[in-house]
Amino acid sequence: MHILITGAAGMVGRKLAERLVADGGLNGKPVDKLTLVDIVAPKAPAGFTGKVDAYALDIAREDAGRKLTEGRPDAIFHLAAVVSGEAEADFEKGYRINLVPFHYLLEAIRTAGGGYHPKLVFTSSIAVFGAPFPSEIPDDFHHTPLTSYGAQKGICELLLMDYTRKGFLDGVGIRLPTICVRPGTPNKAASGFFSNIIREPLAGKEAVLPVEESVMHWHASPRSAAGFLVHAASLTREKLGPRINLTMPGVACTVGEQIAALRRVAGESVVARIRREPDATIMKIVSGWPTRFDARRARSLGFKVEDTFDEIVRVHIDEELGGKIAA
Amino acid sequence: MHILITGAAGMVGRKLAERLVADGGLNGKPVDKLTLVDIVAPKAPAGFTGKVDAYALDIAREDAGRKLTEGRPDAIFHLAAVVSGEAEADFEKGYRINLVPFHYLLEAIRTAGGGYHPKLVFTSSIAVFGAPFPSEIPDDFHHTPLTSYGAQKGICELLLMDYTRKGFLDGVGIRLPTICVRPGTPNKAASGFFSNIIREPLAGKEAVLPVEESVMHWHASPRSAAGFLVHAASLTREKLGPRINLTMPGVACTVGEQIAALRRVAGESVVARIRREPDATIMKIVSGWPTRFDARRARSLGFKVEDTFDEIVRVHIDEELGGKIAA
Repeated sequence: MHILITGAAGMVGRKLAERLVADGGLNGKPVDKLTLVDIVAPKAPAGFTGKVDAYALDIAREDAGRKLTEGRPDAIFHLAAVVSGEAEADFEKGYRINLVPFHYLLEAIRTAGGGYHPKLVFTSSIAVFGAPFPSEIPDDFHHTPLTSYGAQKGICELLLMDYTRKGFLDGVGIRLPTICVRPGTPNKAASGFFSNIIREPLAGKEAVLPVEESVMHWHASPRSAAGFLVHAASLTREKLGPRINLTMPGVACTVGEQIAALRRVAGESVVARIRREPDATIMKIVSGWPTRFDARRARSLGFKVEDTFDEIVRVHIDEELGGKIAA
Repeated sequence: MHILITGAAGMVGRKLAERLVADGGLNGKPVDKLTLVDIVAPKAPAGFTGKVDAYALDIAREDAGRKLTEGRPDAIFHLAAVVSGEAEADFEKGYRINLVPFHYLLEAIRTAGGGYHPKLVFTSSIAVFGAPFPSEIPDDFHHTPLTSYGAQKGICELLLMDYTRKGFLDGVGIRLPTICVRPGTPNKAASGFFSNIIREPLAGKEAVLPVEESVMHWHASPRSAAGFLVHAASLTREKLGPRINLTMPGVACTVGEQIAALRRVAGESVVARIRREPDATIMKIVSGWPTRFDARRARSLGFKVEDTFDEIVRVHIDEELGGKIAA
């Protein structure tokens, strides 16, 4: 089986490649080739014995779709995107990267000929939803994004649904929760603090909390994100029916509950490294974000996530810190 | 005030132009110029004393957006589209006409400079929704179109919302019910029978009913459609808020209730001209269509529609038949 991952140098892309190598296959078939593409050449995952083709590609190039599909991958994970903050700051770039290349890719598949009909897993986002919300957002809630990123993801969902309905490919779109705890260093994303307040204290560093503890949000670990992608690829057209875009399950919790989980797992001395520094701009952005989803359909289709935020903290300690917390 | 109508040669476009001429203005301002564009040159409406620029334009041309906006119309009604059946039969043409030119138009407005900031009214459709449905479809129901036409309209809604949110223009999208009674001759559209079974018998001709009388659907007259468009242009950004795409009110009734209304208005001899000829293909298509909407938000914003199907029949007799029914 030949698998293509776009955005393979990103955090979720790396986790997915590692997961595929660990599993040794996808849907019960061995993976004999991985094609990994990003704006910088991704690294090949350790321990893979099959063929790896890892290269840099600007997916905004008009021929990118053809280039990506010329090796006829059996499954494509389309993760390439610019993040929410960047798409908001640079309107043209958001559309140029988050929308147009996906349409090129769909067109390249549709016109490839020879019965080419890949599985295409698209990472959408809960950013397709915008406030005001009911207390629990149902699976059939409408898309009213309050960011260009959310609008671009929503448009890609509709394209994917139509190309799938017409029989050009087998698509499935998964709306990822906010991924927490993101490894790496603090970034400028408005959502960064959800991870920062866990990751930095666990590493012995101070973290800034810019919002009230009452802010509720929807989380899943990077491990769960890779699991969602792999499970999405296993779903048949029959199982999915025409509604191929799914809100992934997550852990709904407030910032206060996140901190309480960190205290239970790592102790008060770690929690003491969180410094409150309210930021009106970030508070305003976050107030438009979704809080809690029903996600019944995804759960009934077998998607799994952590049960508690404690587990999300432990996944980070396990995967990124080798089990060790900075005293 | 300068008003541009794309798709101005179509039925709704003509009704709108006539309505604007009859009103003499829009939002309390006199209309001194009408620009009317379609794939064939539209006719100037009778009785208009202002300037009319009516010309043929293929909106799929890459420079169409610039051409349409070079005269800086204050209000734009974007009605141009290929119908559902054609977009389904010719996949490329559907995207080329129903999606790409709208994006060009938005880009032309965004990049026009000089503070250009028009009102843009977009005609969307209830085809953005796809079965299964609740018994009454709420305003916050998700988009799961079962046609390419519905997908294209849904994508345009998201684009319009994002360009409006970013402050490039003042957009409002209105999801039209099925327009009934369509004047003219029977066409091949799957929805054609809803109009055919009223229009043809009233004109002394036989009409074919291809579905069961229990089929329920959502209707508004051509007069109401023009009214929706004019009212949409009057809504301020403050009144609309960020959710600028609205399901228009309509009359929910079954085919049996349509026929009963025709009987009340025109008598049994007219109803007797309807011939039942079940068509499995049309029945299957229609089974995926929406039935009844709540449309609470549009009503609260002041959109008005007929109260009964009897009224819809009378509007047709009044506007198209000079008040006369064929005996």
